[in-house]
Amino acid sequence: MVNTQIEYDEMLSVLGRRLQSNAIRKLTLLLGSREVISLAAGAPSFETFPIEELAEISARVIRERGRFALQYGPTRGQVALVEAVAGILSSRGIENCKTSQIVMTTGSQQGLDLIARVILDPGDVAMVELPSYIGAIIALHNAQAQMIGVRQDDGGIVIGDLREKIERARADGRRVKCIYTIPNFQNPSGVTLADERRNQLIEIADEHDLLIIEDDAYFDLYFADDASRLVPLAALRPDRVVNLGTFSKVLAPGLRTAWLRAPEQLATKVELAKEGADLSSSVLDQAIVIESIRDGLIERRLPELRKFYSVRCAAMLEALDRFAPAGSRWTKPLGGFFILMELAGEADATAMLPAAIEAGVAYVPGQPFFVDGRGANTLRLAFSKESPEAIADGVERICRIFQNAMTQKA
Amino acid sequence: MVNTQIEYDEMLSVLGRRLQSNAIRKLTLLLGSREVISLAAGAPSFETFPIEELAEISARVIRERGRFALQYGPTRGQVALVEAVAGILSSRGIENCKTSQIVMTTGSQQGLDLIARVILDPGDVAMVELPSYIGAIIALHNAQAQMIGVRQDDGGIVIGDLREKIERARADGRRVKCIYTIPNFQNPSGVTLADERRNQLIEIADEHDLLIIEDDAYFDLYFADDASRLVPLAALRPDRVVNLGTFSKVLAPGLRTAWLRAPEQLATKVELAKEGADLSSSVLDQAIVIESIRDGLIERRLPELRKFYSVRCAAMLEALDRFAPAGSRWTKPLGGFFILMELAGEADATAMLPAAIEAGVAYVPGQPFFVDGRGANTLRLAFSKESPEAIADGVERICRIFQNAMTQKA
Repeated sequence: MVNTQIEYDEMLSVLGRRLQSNAIRKLTLLLGSREVISLAAGAPSFETFPIEELAEISARVIRERGRFALQYGPTRGQVALVEAVAGILSSRGIENCKTSQIVMTTGSQQGLDLIARVILDPGDVAMVELPSYIGAIIALHNAQAQMIGVRQDDGGIVIGDLREKIERARADGRRVKCIYTIPNFQNPSGVTLADERRNQLIEIADEHDLLIIEDDAYFDLYFADDASRLVPLAALRPDRVVNLGTFSKVLAPGLRTAWLRAPEQLATKVELAKEGADLSSSVLDQAIVIESIRDGLIERRLPELRKFYSVRCAAMLEALDRFAPAGSRWTKPLGGFFILMELAGEADATAMLPAAIEAGVAYVPGQPFFVDGRGANTLRLAFSKESPEAIADGVERICRIFQNAMTQKA
Repeated sequence: MVNTQIEYDEMLSVLGRRLQSNAIRKLTLLLGSREVISLAAGAPSFETFPIEELAEISARVIRERGRFALQYGPTRGQVALVEAVAGILSSRGIENCKTSQIVMTTGSQQGLDLIARVILDPGDVAMVELPSYIGAIIALHNAQAQMIGVRQDDGGIVIGDLREKIERARADGRRVKCIYTIPNFQNPSGVTLADERRNQLIEIADEHDLLIIEDDAYFDLYFADDASRLVPLAALRPDRVVNLGTFSKVLAPGLRTAWLRAPEQLATKVELAKEGADLSSSVLDQAIVIESIRDGLIERRLPELRKFYSVRCAAMLEALDRFAPAGSRWTKPLGGFFILMELAGEADATAMLPAAIEAGVAYVPGQPFFVDGRGANTLRLAFSKESPEAIADGVERICRIFQNAMTQKA
């Protein structure tokens, strides 16, 4: 039930700027008071952080290799880490993955920002899912891209809709440059791109000469043991796909260590952009991640992490089954942190948020994730942060509020 | 005599892209072999890193506050750190410095990148010193700014030249937006902006409604005890000056922790840009810096750091006095890491670099630091990295090469 600062921050950015109302100011104050069950924050639970191991590792890398770990480092990232990432990507089926294709970044957010800056000119079109990750929308917006939203269903991006919208945009003389997708356990919808659609997506990209930006932040966090279906798009078509991955969800986000893998020439451009952007990401963080990989700390904790989040997801699904008002629907994630809930008809998730906060529960209204402005009746529910009991409690409380609001309307 | 990876990297970026010659490829190979006295790298000496203290602090902050230090953090930076920076800036004479004016960044390089992105439209003009810091030139270039170089002498930027060039640019209908300056112990020249010119710079900025970007990375590293003269431009005119400062030179650059202080509204824009750029800088690094400040680790080491670098600077100046070929000149820094050497007449510092490398010494040719393409007869000599003995040895060797080359020409 503790709210960390990111919540306040995320709320301010996602909501504050878009809604600017007294209700929101009140909301942030309440969040500041730290007494809210948060189904809002898209952060891993601090309970998953290997505190003792990381304390030991950090002291060790500083003592043993401080003259490097505390010094400036190469823009592209520490050599040992880049090599380790190439190994991880090979294990995911991306063949012949070379270190020359990889740039380490300050979280995947920096990967998104850099690739957007490198490939997009003002007015260029990026195809994004409806809904899509707000951080990517901001990065694309900052690169002055235009975004066209593509429908998703339970199998992820709807191929027919994608094709039609690309063709229409091109017929209108617009320069369509890329498709941004989160194929696994999407943020915010929780859906996973179906197998056959992965190939179809590649076909469309080939047909229209588009780059695919594959944001695979949740790859390791699947719940069932059939992860063999999670074939990265970059494995299918390495020369057309930029793969973004991160250590934030499986180790610790405060270490801000992620990678961008791109075709070699594009990776070089990203490296040059990064040189101007920050010279390099934290060298100490990278050194800690290298040791965490070498010690097997990341790999050996994955099974328990999957279990940890799948229990929470199950608790949320069960509570939704019990308490959700009639006519509402929600996604059934195979992994990750999020469920997208869709309320019946005219419900307005933003308007009901202050009442939810009043009742001690925070969520993120879905609308800001939809670049077409729809989704007013949707909300993102994160099961990553709270205990299963708090999740059940929180879901019950917001469902009661939704029910009341909808009854009053009717 | 050890060369870390940044050298290789810095050489590649500063030189590789600009010169693209076989000589350079050979140079980088030689640097890779790590047997070169480096007067090239603009990095603090690893001998100054408080290894044991930082090892202890990092383990402590992870153990005691890992649930925050390893989690996502606010885009603007950890509250305690932002407050500490406000205190540092107040102690430098910037009155009423508020936390709402500060954004923590991934090194000052990110501050440069963000402020450039926020204030500049393509084609806008930024006034920069001749020579200027290459990282700033890259950041301004990436924001599609046009740069106009302004002469420096031993007192820093020449006010008459600045005024004249701004007026000419404006008369040509160009939008002059900002002046970028490193007032103290400039990189690469080592010169310090004279007292009276600080006020004159402000007057010109007022007159033409310009923003001043004050990059004060070396503020704490003065050699004599008359630092009272180092009045930040932001102290003179806080509403017109963006102040960039860093913990890289006084603690450890691998922690990538720096600040940007700007007028409040501008700081808010920078924060929004940073949100899209990386969500936040390393939270662990920030937590370590907070504790380093609280423990007094930074403050109490400053006297020895000043001594450390002043001894090296003296060694370089002495060697230059003894060995420099007739007709060459060099700056006499009051602090920082760098001396700019200017050779007589037609000498070409880039052309002589391979011979210097062959003789086991690296430096950075000055030309890339001059946005007007001049400076072919200049070179940047860093005294931050090598021992006084190695510095003397290195200076002697390159001076012999310069002497030979100039004798052959004559």
